Amino acid sequence: MKLWGGRFTRTTDRLVEDFHSSISFDQRLYRQDIAGSIAHARMLAAVGLITPAEGEAIIKGLEEIRADIEAGRVTFDVGAEDIHINIEKLLTERIGAAGKKLHTARSRNDQVALDLRLYLKEEIPEVKKLLAGLQKVLVDLAAEHLHTIMPGYTHLQKAQPVTLAHHLLAYFEMFYRDQERLDGCLERVDVMPLGAGALAGTTLPIDREMVARELGFKEISANSLDAVADRDFVVEFLAAASLIMMHLSRLAEEIILWSSEEFGFIELDDAYSTGSSMMPQKKNPDVAELVRGKTGRVYGHLMGMLAVLKGLPLAYNKDLQEDKEALFDALDTVKGCLMVFTPMLATAKFRVERMREEAARGFATATDVAEYLVRKGLPFREAHAVVGGLVLHCLEQGKSFQDLTLAEWQSFSPHFAEDVFDCITLEACVQGRDLPGGPSPAAVQQALERARKILAGIYSNIIAPGL
Amino acid sequence: MKLWGGRFTRTTDRLVEDFHSSISFDQRLYRQDIAGSIAHARMLAAVGLITPAEGEAIIKGLEEIRADIEAGRVTFDVGAEDIHINIEKLLTERIGAAGKKLHTARSRNDQVALDLRLYLKEEIPEVKKLLAGLQKVLVDLAAEHLHTIMPGYTHLQKAQPVTLAHHLLAYFEMFYRDQERLDGCLERVDVMPLGAGALAGTTLPIDREMVARELGFKEISANSLDAVADRDFVVEFLAAASLIMMHLSRLAEEIILWSSEEFGFIELDDAYSTGSSMMPQKKNPDVAELVRGKTGRVYGHLMGMLAVLKGLPLAYNKDLQEDKEALFDALDTVKGCLMVFTPMLATAKFRVERMREEAARGFATATDVAEYLVRKGLPFREAHAVVGGLVLHCLEQGKSFQDLTLAEWQSFSPHFAEDVFDCITLEACVQGRDLPGGPSPAAVQQALERARKILAGIYSNIIAPGL
Amino acid sequence: MKLWGGRFTRTTDRLVEDFHSSISFDQRLYRQDIAGSIAHARMLAAVGLITPAEGEAIIKGLEEIRADIEAGRVTFDVGAEDIHINIEKLLTERIGAAGKKLHTARSRNDQVALDLRLYLKEEIPEVKKLLAGLQKVLVDLAAEHLHTIMPGYTHLQKAQPVTLAHHLLAYFEMFYRDQERLDGCLERVDVMPLGAGALAGTTLPIDREMVARELGFKEISANSLDAVADRDFVVEFLAAASLIMMHLSRLAEEIILWSSEEFGFIELDDAYSTGSSMMPQKKNPDVAELVRGKTGRVYGHLMGMLAVLKGLPLAYNKDLQEDKEALFDALDTVKGCLMVFTPMLATAKFRVERMREEAARGFATATDVAEYLVRKGLPFREAHAVVGGLVLHCLEQGKSFQDLTLAEWQSFSPHFAEDVFDCITLEACVQGRDLPGGPSPAAVQQALERARKILAGIYSNIIAPGL
Amino acid sequence: MKLWGGRFTRTTDRLVEDFHSSISFDQRLYRQDIAGSIAHARMLAAVGLITPAEGEAIIKGLEEIRADIEAGRVTFDVGAEDIHINIEKLLTERIGAAGKKLHTARSRNDQVALDLRLYLKEEIPEVKKLLAGLQKVLVDLAAEHLHTIMPGYTHLQKAQPVTLAHHLLAYFEMFYRDQERLDGCLERVDVMPLGAGALAGTTLPIDREMVARELGFKEISANSLDAVADRDFVVEFLAAASLIMMHLSRLAEEIILWSSEEFGFIELDDAYSTGSSMMPQKKNPDVAELVRGKTGRVYGHLMGMLAVLKGLPLAYNKDLQEDKEALFDALDTVKGCLMVFTPMLATAKFRVERMREEAARGFATATDVAEYLVRKGLPFREAHAVVGGLVLHCLEQGKSFQDLTLAEWQSFSPHFAEDVFDCITLEACVQGRDLPGGPSPAAVQQALERARKILAGIYSNIIAPGL
Repeated sequence: MKLWGGRFTRTTDRLVEDFHSSISFDQRLYRQDIAGSIAHARMLAAVGLITPAEGEAIIKGLEEIRADIEAGRVTFDVGAEDIHINIEKLLTERIGAAGKKLHTARSRNDQVALDLRLYLKEEIPEVKKLLAGLQKVLVDLAAEHLHTIMPGYTHLQKAQPVTLAHHLLAYFEMFYRDQERLDGCLERVDVMPLGAGALAGTTLPIDREMVARELGFKEISANSLDAVADRDFVVEFLAAASLIMMHLSRLAEEIILWSSEEFGFIELDDAYSTGSSMMPQKKNPDVAELVRGKTGRVYGHLMGMLAVLKGLPLAYNKDLQEDKEALFDALDTVKGCLMVFTPMLATAKFRVERMREEAARGFATATDVAEYLVRKGLPFREAHAVVGGLVLHCLEQGKSFQDLTLAEWQSFSPHFAEDVFDCITLEACVQGRDLPGGPSPAAVQQALERARKILAGIYSNIIAPGL
Repeated sequence: MKLWGGRFTRTTDRLVEDFHSSISFDQRLYRQDIAGSIAHARMLAAVGLITPAEGEAIIKGLEEIRADIEAGRVTFDVGAEDIHINIEKLLTERIGAAGKKLHTARSRNDQVALDLRLYLKEEIPEVKKLLAGLQKVLVDLAAEHLHTIMPGYTHLQKAQPVTLAHHLLAYFEMFYRDQERLDGCLERVDVMPLGAGALAGTTLPIDREMVARELGFKEISANSLDAVADRDFVVEFLAAASLIMMHLSRLAEEIILWSSEEFGFIELDDAYSTGSSMMPQKKNPDVAELVRGKTGRVYGHLMGMLAVLKGLPLAYNKDLQEDKEALFDALDTVKGCLMVFTPMLATAKFRVERMREEAARGFATATDVAEYLVRKGLPFREAHAVVGGLVLHCLEQGKSFQDLTLAEWQSFSPHFAEDVFDCITLEACVQGRDLPGGPSPAAVQQALERARKILAGIYSNIIAPGL
Repeated sequence: MKLWGGRFTRTTDRLVEDFHSSISFDQRLYRQDIAGSIAHARMLAAVGLITPAEGEAIIKGLEEIRADIEAGRVTFDVGAEDIHINIEKLLTERIGAAGKKLHTARSRNDQVALDLRLYLKEEIPEVKKLLAGLQKVLVDLAAEHLHTIMPGYTHLQKAQPVTLAHHLLAYFEMFYRDQERLDGCLERVDVMPLGAGALAGTTLPIDREMVARELGFKEISANSLDAVADRDFVVEFLAAASLIMMHLSRLAEEIILWSSEEFGFIELDDAYSTGSSMMPQKKNPDVAELVRGKTGRVYGHLMGMLAVLKGLPLAYNKDLQEDKEALFDALDTVKGCLMVFTPMLATAKFRVERMREEAARGFATATDVAEYLVRKGLPFREAHAVVGGLVLHCLEQGKSFQDLTLAEWQSFSPHFAEDVFDCITLEACVQGRDLPGGPSPAAVQQALERARKILAGIYSNIIAPGL
Repeated sequence: MKLWGGRFTRTTDRLVEDFHSSISFDQRLYRQDIAGSIAHARMLAAVGLITPAEGEAIIKGLEEIRADIEAGRVTFDVGAEDIHINIEKLLTERIGAAGKKLHTARSRNDQVALDLRLYLKEEIPEVKKLLAGLQKVLVDLAAEHLHTIMPGYTHLQKAQPVTLAHHLLAYFEMFYRDQERLDGCLERVDVMPLGAGALAGTTLPIDREMVARELGFKEISANSLDAVADRDFVVEFLAAASLIMMHLSRLAEEIILWSSEEFGFIELDDAYSTGSSMMPQKKNPDVAELVRGKTGRVYGHLMGMLAVLKGLPLAYNKDLQEDKEALFDALDTVKGCLMVFTPMLATAKFRVERMREEAARGFATATDVAEYLVRKGLPFREAHAVVGGLVLHCLEQGKSFQDLTLAEWQSFSPHFAEDVFDCITLEACVQGRDLPGGPSPAAVQQALERARKILAGIYSNIIAPGL
């Protein structure tokens, strides 16, 4: 029988039971549910709503249930709908009457909000840790490749030479902002909802602040209706997760491009590649492709959850049950992607000669020639036009800048002198871009130091004080 | 060892293996995979690529594997990645060398496209059948409520009286279009991709038409690259499913509204309602709420899949592996929703007096008064203004139309005569709207006959010839 | 004053007026609105609700207004909310009393549904025509490149050689399915809603079938509530448009890849490329990039519209006003993209030697070697393993298949004989794949004929009978 | 001629020009573009890349152009693509050679990133201000309705009585979190990208910090590739905007419900309602409906932008041009919605008797009865069952709690005594819920003070220091 069945004359249809039962997926919250119930029981005893003995019985019972679940000794009951009722039923079976007092001054509406918040309070730092791990690999690779010249692209056309270090640190910055967004989300998750009851609190004399302290929450929720009715923190997490995936998808795309024979910039370790059931020669960048593909999946969860919440009147509505599977799958996806992407990147072999070879092709140093002319006094727009003409000339003649004689240079502008040859080497182009945020080794060295400091901050403050 | 491991020097990292293994979800395709392999083997034998004895051994082996899977005697191997390799491995273990010939002239790329298409070919009619079941309930309820007057709303404001029959048949029409969209999707699903190989077919002399005939496909795919690279049929199904859910969400919303004490138009059967863990008096329309909520979930899958496919170069990319979970979950969701929604509606008790009572409140007959004046020769815009003034007068006096004397009527327009009282009864308003597609019992009777004919067509042509 | 102001005591706040006024975007529907009103007036006169003279005055007035709008002589009035009221007001100003009779037996709810359906009835064939234009270019290019060998890719890794013709025709097939989806959508658009009134029809004796005939509709709507309340046909169009964009985005991605110096498969005409304000050498495939980017925009409209409709109770709600801008922008986007994409593709120069060169690199013929062994009697899985070993050997020795001696071949399998050298030429690989839907010139020639027949069908049946 | 046309041999196709021209929508950025150029010119002069006189000429020219634009004296040129080139062209036409030096050490890639960031730096506080305005109305209404009892709902079923003040302050909390999310977004927007050039900075000796100071930015971007390639800040804003709209849509839904005759809790001011073109009696909550509908539109922009960014390789790609229209429309939508929603709410008339009447119907005090029993010593689960039985008894007898005799109460549990009648009054139920975050007037009074303090903080710190 349902715990809420008093008023009903007929039993729930079996199909319906399966339909709205959530135990198949919310059992993942058992630890949070038990932790919340223990704190709740402690408070009930402290304010005298249950006796100390009842409190102790409840807590001991819950701890045993947790141990049993972890040991795989518990089979959940679909008929008991959800993790909350499953655990309460188990408790009452084990400790008798005291178990029936656990739900005093509580509703599943505030209980599930609590469980979900506890869960995210634990999981967000896990995501942060994995993200920091990827950032660490980017920093290490950048330190190794300060002088590795590669083509910088816009529109997938070669634009200007950069270094691999500079390129990789661009992603460091993206993931750093993702870290910040996770911090902001965590701030708003870290609010204790218990005591909101079904929607309007309780007439019983509970102590919400005590529960918050017990569970390590920063503060208690300020409005009971809001506490049970909103899931904006889930959406906020899904949006942050979508941006992490978006950034990952871009790096994944580049790894796929670089793995192609045409680019040939990278060779993935065999451990992070797969073959073909039909074509014996294939070595596919499956991990990067799957990460790119799974981006859509997380986007979908974000969109789904936004659609769920649109236009729902206050307070709790059953629609909110849809929050968990989306959240769990998004968390699993982001964490799973980071877990394989990071070692894949760390073990990849960069083909530095091939990168340099492609950086030298084309006219990636054209802007440098234009800026050379600017330094000689030409207005930028005129310099731009002169170099445009030079490029056209080279294309028609099948030449590169290196192939031009000084006389040819000068036929396009009298400002060209012998020193133009110095300005079109790849090294000069990269070292010349020596401004804050630029690709010169000196500038990137500073960026690296900044990145290391940020990373240390993430590790020490948020993830594991002392690491 | 992987079946594609020949060229690799190191084994796949365990984490990666889990990451890109799909056996946990694509095992659902085992029947389709085996059916496809049987047809393929039959063809290989027919064209002489394997011997008749090998063909028979393969087919017998596959049938036994199918029986074992269905009896729960098979444990799939995560290391074998997917359902295709799992089955092939099992086969080779059982029948030896002949098993290694099954994958001749085939790739997992065309194999998975085949499996997915076979799966949808079976599932779409299932969805159609469930949808028809709901339409049947709508038709039956409409037949019962031809004369049940209820308020028709726009902007959730009472607008004009209609009948419950008319209201319910609006949903019949929506679901009918959904049926048509499923038909269109099925047309495009019903194309046999095997023979496309990895992307470019095969040099071996296979007979694609024979495989199509064996498996009951309408035609074979016309381009091998397209056959393995596109999943537009999955998106098309997800879009059709999203529209079904959208329509369901609207009816769900109405059932939730009608279940409120304020509306009070409907009482759900206890079997399709749930109670509260905290509030003993509650009877909640959870099924309707969950259906409304799950709409977001299906939308999310649609959006996710569109994002996955955007910008993918030809032909197969691993990103496509993301197609299955979204599709399976959307199918489960739509089918699950229909399975509970239909009996919930069928068992609901409509409070016809309450509906009528609300239809009589307000000024839902105001348009009829205006049209009365039009029939007396007033231009519509003037009639509209006259009635606007009448409504304002009533609101200020706290009266309804029924309370007005003929003198009061006439003080607003000399066109009013005794017969105005006839035109403002609910029955007159409903019966007067006797045009094709209108709410009059006669018009709805015709709509019902149309609906029954459509339903018969769906049942006989698509679902179960002869029913 | 508002046409609906009779009952109101205060005037609408100016800000609100701007907020819900739609004239800024729905003026695009003026032709449809006027056409609908003319048909409505003709019917009102035919059934006697207005006099023949009034009917003529209305029609003449509307035709003049249309001419004035087209000549730019009309300034719309934001205060008059929408195109329907703007035109009705203009009419009444011009022809007096008769104008006030036009709205007899009609509501803006059925009127806007009519206008939108008329609009899509015209626009879908326009999209089809543009899509057919792109398909025509694909067919023409394919005819030209039947023998142009290029690498076929999976996972962006070279897989097996194909021809450019075969590759391009893959897109022909995708767009063909898009054409079919547009046809299905058009079927459901082609339904005449007028007569549904605000939601429940009218008590006046109108002739809906006559209006449908006048306007060229296939049928009339079967339920008045449904006719004004649903916009599934808009969603269906947006879903079809999203798939067109998805397919375009994939071809766009390939064009961007092929335009890169690393691939170098294509050179876009200067007219369809742009340069850089900073880098004089750049030639960017902006058109393809923008098309790829605009895919997200159309996806967004689809998602937005689905979210709008979720959970709306019957019948009309003001939320539905959001249908138009999304639809208009999606139409403009799809048409705009097709208009530039088609000539961009038609004028592109394919670098056939470069394609061939890349097809020859790598081990794209490995599957052919495996299938060679299959023909010699080896089970496919064993053949696959032998060739995997060969590829590894070549990679270690820095050789290609062409570099191997017969002795080397035979050291991997005694089945290799002199004829293996014939099977690893690109021509042999492509010609050998001579199955329906395969890349051999003969097979593609048949695909071309099929494509031409399809295209002729599209042109003759849907777009311009007689072309 | 294009400013980048040097290398091109043919002119851009007119259709293409229109296709990728953005001047029609990015002209909105003219103020930001000019402000950025002025700061850039000042810096170029400071570091000696242009002369002081050139600097002054540029600045004066730009200021005049700004004045002319604001006076409507400038017609933009579609052929000049975007706002950046339009202004540069105007400048060069006006001041000659010096104008051609403005683009020194700058690319449109960093320029557009700057403009967009400047724009959001101004617009986010505008949104915050409007949101604070709505929060202010919620606070004022709450202060007025501390004692206005209304039904609290879960599942749209009456659950427990609350006050209107408590209900409205739930939204205050939601919008407060939205304010915080906007703050977080603003932090990440407030980064100065100029100097990133096309992607790799410049070889010229610029001073990025000076430009940041001139423009009031908190810091400069740390990586040039990242600075031009990412638009995560746009997505972050769209996600924050989507949550604002989500919250608005919920309040809008409630206002629509409350405006229905069935609920009858609220009457909107005529200025914020509209009528019907057909039904003279209608008064529709169009503003709330449109706000609810426009929620989908903002969701769509979020989804669209996420799709645009997925899988883009570094650095700038033309796809990014799609950022602006989505952002502008989302901003316009959110601001427009807040501008009408706030006065609509402020002027609405709450029908407090009707709310109280509905709060008294049903069994909204059932939890209080259960908690009464808990206080008498019954375990909660048993108390819950007792009250469930009581409710069933009442339903069968057609009675409410108030109608029961003490004997009847006691027939369900001996714990009931005379004081049960005190605990079932609405006032007792509300006042009894006197816990932090609860609905009792005392608790809400504290919530109000908190809200006022928060609001003062928002006004003083972020919006207008000193207010």
